[in-house]
Amino acid sequence: MSEFSQSETQEPRPAVSRRGFLVSAGLATGVAAVGVGTGYAVAQAEAAQKAASGDLGQQKVPFYGKHQAGIETASQAYGTFLGWKLKPSTDREGAIRMMRLLTDDAARLTQGVPALPDNDPYLALNPARLTATFGFGPSFFTKLGLDSKIPTGFAELPAFSIDKLKPEFSGGDLVIQVGSDDPLSLSHAVRQLTRTARSFATILWSQSGFTSTPGAKPEGQTGRNLFGQVDGTVNPRTAEEFDAQVWAQGSPRWFDGGTSMVLRRIAMNLDTWDKLDEGSKELSVGRKLSNGAPLTGVNEFDPPNLAAKSDNGLPVIPSFAHMRRARTDDVTQKFLRRPLNYDEGINSDGSPNVGLLFAAYMANVSHQFVPVQQRLADLDLLNTWTTPIGSAVFALAPGCQPGGFIGEGLLS
Amino acid sequence: MSEFSQSETQEPRPAVSRRGFLVSAGLATGVAAVGVGTGYAVAQAEAAQKAASGDLGQQKVPFYGKHQAGIETASQAYGTFLGWKLKPSTDREGAIRMMRLLTDDAARLTQGVPALPDNDPYLALNPARLTATFGFGPSFFTKLGLDSKIPTGFAELPAFSIDKLKPEFSGGDLVIQVGSDDPLSLSHAVRQLTRTARSFATILWSQSGFTSTPGAKPEGQTGRNLFGQVDGTVNPRTAEEFDAQVWAQGSPRWFDGGTSMVLRRIAMNLDTWDKLDEGSKELSVGRKLSNGAPLTGVNEFDPPNLAAKSDNGLPVIPSFAHMRRARTDDVTQKFLRRPLNYDEGINSDGSPNVGLLFAAYMANVSHQFVPVQQRLADLDLLNTWTTPIGSAVFALAPGCQPGGFIGEGLLS
Repeated sequence: MSEFSQSETQEPRPAVSRRGFLVSAGLATGVAAVGVGTGYAVAQAEAAQKAASGDLGQQKVPFYGKHQAGIETASQAYGTFLGWKLKPSTDREGAIRMMRLLTDDAARLTQGVPALPDNDPYLALNPARLTATFGFGPSFFTKLGLDSKIPTGFAELPAFSIDKLKPEFSGGDLVIQVGSDDPLSLSHAVRQLTRTARSFATILWSQSGFTSTPGAKPEGQTGRNLFGQVDGTVNPRTAEEFDAQVWAQGSPRWFDGGTSMVLRRIAMNLDTWDKLDEGSKELSVGRKLSNGAPLTGVNEFDPPNLAAKSDNGLPVIPSFAHMRRARTDDVTQKFLRRPLNYDEGINSDGSPNVGLLFAAYMANVSHQFVPVQQRLADLDLLNTWTTPIGSAVFALAPGCQPGGFIGEGLLS
Repeated sequence: MSEFSQSETQEPRPAVSRRGFLVSAGLATGVAAVGVGTGYAVAQAEAAQKAASGDLGQQKVPFYGKHQAGIETASQAYGTFLGWKLKPSTDREGAIRMMRLLTDDAARLTQGVPALPDNDPYLALNPARLTATFGFGPSFFTKLGLDSKIPTGFAELPAFSIDKLKPEFSGGDLVIQVGSDDPLSLSHAVRQLTRTARSFATILWSQSGFTSTPGAKPEGQTGRNLFGQVDGTVNPRTAEEFDAQVWAQGSPRWFDGGTSMVLRRIAMNLDTWDKLDEGSKELSVGRKLSNGAPLTGVNEFDPPNLAAKSDNGLPVIPSFAHMRRARTDDVTQKFLRRPLNYDEGINSDGSPNVGLLFAAYMANVSHQFVPVQQRLADLDLLNTWTTPIGSAVFALAPGCQPGGFIGEGLLS
């Protein structure tokens, strides 16, 4: 069979060990050196040519920065969340090694550069806004003796009366969130990150979902879920709003610029939902199905008039409407939603196995998320057709700079 | 709650019965009449505005014609195959009713028009090259007393030594193949078609896969599978090639313009595949990973030189190479491949649950597909890393004209 040159003075090829490469070239700084042979170089050059034309595959989200990518990033078309449990042998030193390697993978893959090693490097060429984001569950802190560094307000959620949680969609020490506008690029990145993580941790669950393909829905309209609802209208958009709602402000200090994610898997019963007519569906949420406008408004982003009454004296937006129950006038309780739809095929009775991967991001879980979820658990007509079947919380570390790694402030 | 006008002289709204509508407006010819209320009309107008700009969501594949869509159609980014078993109560009259209704659904949904009824009509607005294609398994003919109309060469595949078939991915009386460049549009269409089919049939399996998002890979390059291989180079491209390889030429007469599909679910072992270096991977197939060129050529579509020897006297394209085993000089044995990658997450040991939904289309299964598959079962180095775990064959009926339905030549 064919043979490799493994000399590190020549172009490294895929089978060169990452350890060797990291030693010789420095961690994740040698992007230009990561050619993997002539064929790869040609393909890489072809891909680079496309960059100038704004080609979708060549769109790249910067990896390094104050915050991790994949949070403020506009939702990609496809996403996967991976939940991991640390192996008993993974101590704090092991966790540092794991996060160094995962950081290295992510820094490369998101920029269209194969991981080290990456034995399918051609699948890395078209990242299509690929992001990889890392977070730690409450048990991660406890297992590694880091309880003193738990972010303010970060804890497992209380039990809610509506929950029917399944272990196969819940909990975890470590989360890896991956998103891309291309399903092939996503699948390859998940494979590479999994290959690294599985040396240190055991997979608990993998959950995948989608929004819409770029260009598939009208420009500027928020995406729809599988109930047909425009979903995600009330979200922070400016840097100031992100600072106020999403990014932790140094409490504790290592978490400055981080955020917390609540991931809820919400099963949706399309069979019963589809028995409703359009007006009834709109009353259950308080928004129009056509464009997501509040029932008292015309356009999606019109503020709702909660005091408005119809001719018969009842509120136009009913007391049980999801929108009325979820919203808050306390700006310190708002947060970012970045939901993905899931579709796992068809149950044996012909009903669809579909729902929402509800991912929410906030500086402080106890203060921002729990009160809203409690209100919705107490009363929300949408509960009639939805069931939370998975739940997990993770502290997403701040970003890092070249040479650093995600989680360094916590683990170092 | 809100109320509907169900008068058929006004715009029908989603809850109007399909039966009533079909009677009053004629089957699937009343597309312009399918407004479903003011909000919907506004959203529809917005979507229509986009059509002029070549917006991805508004790209439509014609439904009616001599052949069904979704075969000659360039592969969409996402696809789902649904396998069904007829209910014992579904006789030939029932099958006619089912195919009339499925045809009506497909004729509407593929053109961005909600099905009747469609209680989530806003999800129908952006078809993004949506196609829906229908076919019948050998058992469909037998159950309905139609054995005399079985297409020439159409039969269950023989058992191959490499097969490890699982019932949950195999067989079926009816297949519905759905494809779209938008996963949300796809999910909605599958939901609508399932809602119709489940009155007449029971779901056996649902299998979903993907290629690449439009714009994510270099223009003109064939797509890659999860082994990183360019997959689908040798395919018919001209109308003449489709006539010679894919479209049945009137044997029996009702099948004129139809084709047969072989659907094989092929599990791929990425863990062992990734132990190979690039050169070894290339030898196993006989093509370069960089661009899919034969090992004796430079560009993807260069013809291979099977006689070429390397300096050591061995064939450049080895005797065990997939390409040498699969190819044929007999043009009457060629056929169309339209593979999708599948990624069902991660097994508990950390290995990826991935593979290929190998969909092949040919006029005559026995003459075109079986000899090739037999050669590959006998010898193909790729068998080392791949395992067929699902298999089914379906006769895809010819297309139909407005007022007709898919399968009319067989069932009427």
